[in-house]
Amino acid sequence: MFHDRLADTARRIEAQFTRVLADLEPVPVVQAMGYATEGGKRLRAFLVLESARLHGVDPARAIWPATAIEALHAYSLVHDDLPCMDDDDLRRGRPTVHVKWNDGLAVLTGDALHSLAFELVSHPETGPPQVRAELALSLARASGAQGMVLGQALDMAAETAETALTLDQITALQAGKTGALIQWSACAGAHLAQADPAPLQRYAQAMGLAFQIADDILDVEGDAEKAGKRLNKDAQAGKATFVSLLGLEGAKSRATALVEQACAALSPYGTQAETLREAARFVIARDN
Amino acid sequence: MFHDRLADTARRIEAQFTRVLADLEPVPVVQAMGYATEGGKRLRAFLVLESARLHGVDPARAIWPATAIEALHAYSLVHDDLPCMDDDDLRRGRPTVHVKWNDGLAVLTGDALHSLAFELVSHPETGPPQVRAELALSLARASGAQGMVLGQALDMAAETAETALTLDQITALQAGKTGALIQWSACAGAHLAQADPAPLQRYAQAMGLAFQIADDILDVEGDAEKAGKRLNKDAQAGKATFVSLLGLEGAKSRATALVEQACAALSPYGTQAETLREAARFVIARDN
Repeated sequence: MFHDRLADTARRIEAQFTRVLADLEPVPVVQAMGYATEGGKRLRAFLVLESARLHGVDPARAIWPATAIEALHAYSLVHDDLPCMDDDDLRRGRPTVHVKWNDGLAVLTGDALHSLAFELVSHPETGPPQVRAELALSLARASGAQGMVLGQALDMAAETAETALTLDQITALQAGKTGALIQWSACAGAHLAQADPAPLQRYAQAMGLAFQIADDILDVEGDAEKAGKRLNKDAQAGKATFVSLLGLEGAKSRATALVEQACAALSPYGTQAETLREAARFVIARDN
Repeated sequence: MFHDRLADTARRIEAQFTRVLADLEPVPVVQAMGYATEGGKRLRAFLVLESARLHGVDPARAIWPATAIEALHAYSLVHDDLPCMDDDDLRRGRPTVHVKWNDGLAVLTGDALHSLAFELVSHPETGPPQVRAELALSLARASGAQGMVLGQALDMAAETAETALTLDQITALQAGKTGALIQWSACAGAHLAQADPAPLQRYAQAMGLAFQIADDILDVEGDAEKAGKRLNKDAQAGKATFVSLLGLEGAKSRATALVEQACAALSPYGTQAETLREAARFVIARDN
């Protein structure tokens, strides 16, 4: 069920990006926007569409914030991969944007995707003005200096810090770096329906942390070819990770406990939320 | 009158940034956000506040989109100055963000200011949801791949093009690069009041182009110390400018005609719009 829905999400998001980008001038930056938004797991979009389904929201409305969060995620990857940031030349098994084009164009491509995310989220078809304003405000907070960028900044500071991060510090870092967008995605369905997002927020908090622990495990145990990116970078850089702090087995059991916690948070939705529970289990079972 | 209002705008914007940034963690990226948003003419904020005043909008509401557009403008300057973009080490007479910190932090600082712009524009104190959703949507369009980023991308393409740009092409480039944000700013007051933005849009179109022609004139005739940035870069790079295409006198008379056109567009507002007319005249008389 989950894998079918995820595959369906991917198809719908690709189609929506194709439609949206077709309205823009066919200049290189727009071609790079298309390239940067191809592929990926589409987990964030899935969380938007699935939490919307749980609240009976028309998928024709939910596709807008679902595509928005994928645009925002894509911008963050394009900038993260830059030589002055993580310096990665491979992403989803293909050359990164700055390798295929150049650094300046990659900066602009990320910037354009960043603006596009806010255009999509506040698009009239997303819903009534109250919903669009709330989604734009919460997306801005989740992506900025109290959310994703804060996490990235803490990560950057950790690279030159003299002492390795503690477990609490890594948890705070990840709550920003990946947690904030995952939380926004899971809560989007409730916001679309103007319903209480609290249960989805608890689900996403636990699931987002499990996701990042799984990433650290994959970084050690994974197969670079399946992951489509270089692995073992953190360990080589001597950075503290959940694995270096908890040990491989400790990290695995912590991730499993978090997934159980995420599933339990969905009890108000009963069996309707089974696909979201499967998603939480997938997060620690994936190989990329 | 205009100069007093502009000085007052600058004070209010500085105070608002201080207040907003004080809520964030005191990490380097937040310090750099403060640094990048200090100084500047605040012309865009002035246009928001002044068009709001023209429509009787409470300044306590208008300060939010006014600060938003300055955050967005600041992000674009931080990214533009990067070595992989325009490679400028001086801005407003001080070292640019990547010189004072580093390139990676400058990328993140721009990204955080970009998100902050959308947070401020969709802030509850900006007004009713309809207004906030409309301002967020229009700001996303003005800043993205059909607005500012498109202009920047065309500018980047022009640098490696074999033939110099024509007057029409430079006009299109500037309509995106500086025109889109100036237009958004001037129309913001009408949007805040849910009034017709058409006269302000015509004003801003003419004024934005005059602004850019004046920039090209300053690039040739200006004083680098007053401008607070390096001059004569475009001519040295062999890029076509309004001056290279129209000649110095031709560019000056075109700018003067555009300012007259901008002033005439304000006739529906009568003498109430005198400060905006002064602003248009200032745009071609400034020395920085």
